[in-house]
Amino acid sequence: MRIDILSLFPEMFTGVLETSILKKASEKGAVSYKVTDFREYADNKHKTVDDYPYGGGAGMVLKPQPIFDAVTTMTSKNETKTKPRVILMCPQGERYTQKKAEELATEDHLIFICGHYEGYDERIREHIVTDEISIGDYVLTGGELASMVVLDSVVRLLPDVLGKAASHEQDSFSTGLLEHPHYTRPADFRGMKVPDVLLSGNHAYIEEWRTKEALRRTFRRRPDLLEGYSLNEQQMEWLSEIKKEEETY
Amino acid sequence: MRIDILSLFPEMFTGVLETSILKKASEKGAVSYKVTDFREYADNKHKTVDDYPYGGGAGMVLKPQPIFDAVTTMTSKNETKTKPRVILMCPQGERYTQKKAEELATEDHLIFICGHYEGYDERIREHIVTDEISIGDYVLTGGELASMVVLDSVVRLLPDVLGKAASHEQDSFSTGLLEHPHYTRPADFRGMKVPDVLLSGNHAYIEEWRTKEALRRTFRRRPDLLEGYSLNEQQMEWLSEIKKEEETY
Repeated sequence: MRIDILSLFPEMFTGVLETSILKKASEKGAVSYKVTDFREYADNKHKTVDDYPYGGGAGMVLKPQPIFDAVTTMTSKNETKTKPRVILMCPQGERYTQKKAEELATEDHLIFICGHYEGYDERIREHIVTDEISIGDYVLTGGELASMVVLDSVVRLLPDVLGKAASHEQDSFSTGLLEHPHYTRPADFRGMKVPDVLLSGNHAYIEEWRTKEALRRTFRRRPDLLEGYSLNEQQMEWLSEIKKEEETY
Repeated sequence: MRIDILSLFPEMFTGVLETSILKKASEKGAVSYKVTDFREYADNKHKTVDDYPYGGGAGMVLKPQPIFDAVTTMTSKNETKTKPRVILMCPQGERYTQKKAEELATEDHLIFICGHYEGYDERIREHIVTDEISIGDYVLTGGELASMVVLDSVVRLLPDVLGKAASHEQDSFSTGLLEHPHYTRPADFRGMKVPDVLLSGNHAYIEEWRTKEALRRTFRRRPDLLEGYSLNEQQMEWLSEIKKEEETY
């Protein structure tokens, strides 16, 4: 997979792209990143990338020309035959989910456009962008952090990137339930103890406890996730036990 | 505001904390950041911070001792009288919103705990964490990017951080509606034109167009936001016009 990032602050990406999974994925050849300052593509003498909004108002607006030309160049340089996904990070976009990450992970080429403070000229959205994505309902200074979030979630899904093929299977949102609690040594840490069941060595009992606690945590914190989850008969029984316990809790 | 970040990958933060608003906020004295590798706090010979999960299973679990001791040290070093908010970044947390950002922006001291691949020993959640936060329903490799997202959204709300006091007021989620489209020069870019109204110089008409288009975009993309928004009579009229237009669209 090839990933192009257009940003006026390319230095923001250095630490993140050179650490951990994102670095390993690039070392393994699963992905190549290129961060481009789209100011380089501005065709005016002063390399201006933004201008005042038509109709007045506070704030600046990113001009269409530098972004159009940068995206066109990146698209034409791409040797794969498929068209790139051109992703605009913005609060007006569709809300990002794990499903979207899985969809993007099947692509050959992603181009992220990251604005910063400024708005985007609407013609960018209408004519070259394929996906507008928001990572959540909060205000960020720019699209840079949002694009890092998306690319981390996508790159870790690429084949051979994670050490064990299964290691992302049990994550929250991949199974549909929140994860059960985890404990490690010591069994007694300053008076705070690990539940006896986990020390019992009885694996069937441990599995039952874990499933119940995953159900309990999901019921308490994200009951909306249970609506989309198909419970088996045993799990439904446990869930109604949990509901009774929680009422008296 | 003081912000402590506990992470096993402190180098990930360099580019982000030294750019743009986050850098300016620290230069102005509005905030000070400290990123600490909590491995330094491990009291065992090999500086181990994780261990196998009790009860078996894939993946490692972060031990309680290094994180407990790091948080205790940071809390005791704090000269303000208020208790720090100890924030765990995790998929099981409450979903992050702009309202939470505004709440955190009133605090004196935030401590972020960022795990990476591993789970957290449950005793960390139960005994030292005050807030568990998830930035969205997708799987990330670690809490680092998530904590950067939270701290960017919080720091930009601190007094005197943004150049113009009003510059975040009109952002999406601050007004409750998505933003209207923006346009800048040229009026005709390669055949793609700016709407006439924005070139008209009639400010009342421009305001009307902007409000309508903000309503239209919100209706199309995020109708859920309209439920929590109180429309005035004029806006209700426009919204029903928009609904009719969209039906034939």
